[in-house]
Amino acid sequence: MHDALLADFDAGRKAALARAISIVENHRKGYDRLLGALHPRVGHARRVGITGPPGAGKSSITVCLAQGYRAQGLTVGIVCVDPTSPFTGGALIGDRIRMEDIALDPGVYIRSLATRGSLGGLSAATREVCDVLDAFGIDRILIETVGVGQSELDVARTADTTLVVLVPESGDSIQTLKAGLMEIADVFVVNKADRPGADRLRTEIELMLGMRPGAVMSDGAGHHGVDLSRNNLARHVREAAAGDETRWTPPVLRTTATDGTGIAELSDALDRHYGYLESSGQLRARRRARLRERVVDVVDDTTRRRLWTDAATAAWLEERLPDLEAGRETPFAIADALLARSADLLTGRTT
Amino acid sequence: MHDALLADFDAGRKAALARAISIVENHRKGYDRLLGALHPRVGHARRVGITGPPGAGKSSITVCLAQGYRAQGLTVGIVCVDPTSPFTGGALIGDRIRMEDIALDPGVYIRSLATRGSLGGLSAATREVCDVLDAFGIDRILIETVGVGQSELDVARTADTTLVVLVPESGDSIQTLKAGLMEIADVFVVNKADRPGADRLRTEIELMLGMRPGAVMSDGAGHHGVDLSRNNLARHVREAAAGDETRWTPPVLRTTATDGTGIAELSDALDRHYGYLESSGQLRARRRARLRERVVDVVDDTTRRRLWTDAATAAWLEERLPDLEAGRETPFAIADALLARSADLLTGRTT
Repeated sequence: MHDALLADFDAGRKAALARAISIVENHRKGYDRLLGALHPRVGHARRVGITGPPGAGKSSITVCLAQGYRAQGLTVGIVCVDPTSPFTGGALIGDRIRMEDIALDPGVYIRSLATRGSLGGLSAATREVCDVLDAFGIDRILIETVGVGQSELDVARTADTTLVVLVPESGDSIQTLKAGLMEIADVFVVNKADRPGADRLRTEIELMLGMRPGAVMSDGAGHHGVDLSRNNLARHVREAAAGDETRWTPPVLRTTATDGTGIAELSDALDRHYGYLESSGQLRARRRARLRERVVDVVDDTTRRRLWTDAATAAWLEERLPDLEAGRETPFAIADALLARSADLLTGRTT
Repeated sequence: MHDALLADFDAGRKAALARAISIVENHRKGYDRLLGALHPRVGHARRVGITGPPGAGKSSITVCLAQGYRAQGLTVGIVCVDPTSPFTGGALIGDRIRMEDIALDPGVYIRSLATRGSLGGLSAATREVCDVLDAFGIDRILIETVGVGQSELDVARTADTTLVVLVPESGDSIQTLKAGLMEIADVFVVNKADRPGADRLRTEIELMLGMRPGAVMSDGAGHHGVDLSRNNLARHVREAAAGDETRWTPPVLRTTATDGTGIAELSDALDRHYGYLESSGQLRARRRARLRERVVDVVDDTTRRRLWTDAATAAWLEERLPDLEAGRETPFAIADALLARSADLLTGRTT
């Protein structure tokens, strides 16, 4: 049904790209066949996830990186993932204006994704939209997550490389960041590095990473020192013993995105990480894991759609609600009975 | 299997309550049978969701409301829902200390829930933990959501009554709040009402709600006026035409939680809203909708567990990954094939 669209897509028409993304993002009719048709072409683009606290300069860094890639003749896709917080939604207008500057470049494609339903759904939607950009032949995809929760970090992790942007002000709360960030960051950036505290933050991150042999750091200024836990030390020793090919210690870089300082070095670090992923076999492993997750997402979506758009199932459930309300039935017993009668529906025999 | 626990639970032992919540929250073995056994006793507690931007004083208001209920001889459960943002996790220590004051009261039970997996899962976990508190005989349950995203609002909406806490500083961003808040708020509070701007914020909210006949408000101080959209006016007219029983206009109250000003009025407003829910039939409708959602959640959880903990399914999927990687297969075709072969698994015939 999307033959004309696919022909335009193959011809590299940006309008076809925009339409394909809309169909996929909103799960319009036939989106699955469209994604299926594009699937064999996916795998060329390098995907970089960019995350960090509000105000760290993620958008500025995204724009700088995009400009650098364009200078190298590469095409760029930017996916802004915005879990539309009703309480913080207004803060981003300045960033959006900066984005509009590069949006005029025909080699740049920008798309914002907002939360629809759960954030789990958002991370699936991000992967799907990135697949469309990838299939279109885009060289570099930058996935910027605006939110600050664990689930937004999960979105960033749909990328090949995850960049965590911090600012000197982040230092105070770095203790609480520790676990989550250590797990996901492939590259750290201390942005606004001309401000006081940039060096200290960099040192703290490096201590957390076990890159520095110092024990407990204390500057006597009310900051809690960072202790090298035994876990970290063990990891450090283990990684130091392994060959360079199987080891990646996240570099901690400094940038000032407003004047472009440090962006070339950052871009190099991202390339180096990609090289590490390729040579270590990690790239294949990560992409295979992503494909496995894709199938799981599609299966879960499909079971939900088959069950909850079925009128007979809805009517059956509605009939049982009075017993549930009265406490004569439990949600678990009804769920079991519902599944027991839904074999044809779930396996697709009736659709 | 939980007979001894249920006996202690029935005897009103708080240790049994804590253990039951742990089993349910972490979905330990037998949690479904435990929830099933408790289900007939659920329905007594009044549930109030409390949400708002960071720093609005949600925890202070929660503590004040709890103290008021205790003075009336009512037992109180407090569920703090914290989607553990790795970037903002450190800000809440002060609030936690305030909570500890009332945690010593034997008539108060406090539980923090953190994100595990998706936020969708968090809202299900919140409902389940509230059901346990409810079955224990707790009179009032206050559900405080710490996060600021749409999904946290969804958590607040698992309550009978949703309270939105704002502060005068929120006024600048109220335009962006509009849609989300109007949809969920049953009661508004302007906290820190002794600060400048409290009156203006209250007026803005009332204009948004269509409670004031004024058209566009402009104070000339750089704030964008709030226009009464046609939708709002239509709603206003429609509701004014309906009887009092079928209509609820969210009141906008002022509090200063630090000294308790306005808390008694707030508590009254929450009671009035509950009375409205009862007399209008809304309470039954909301609770029925919640039960329907519970069954849907349990069904979705069950299908996922049956599929993705099955070793044969995992092995079958693993065998197909090379074809998927090579682009010879699509995630959709594999998902269809996986479901087609899983009838016994999904319907529970093999478990």
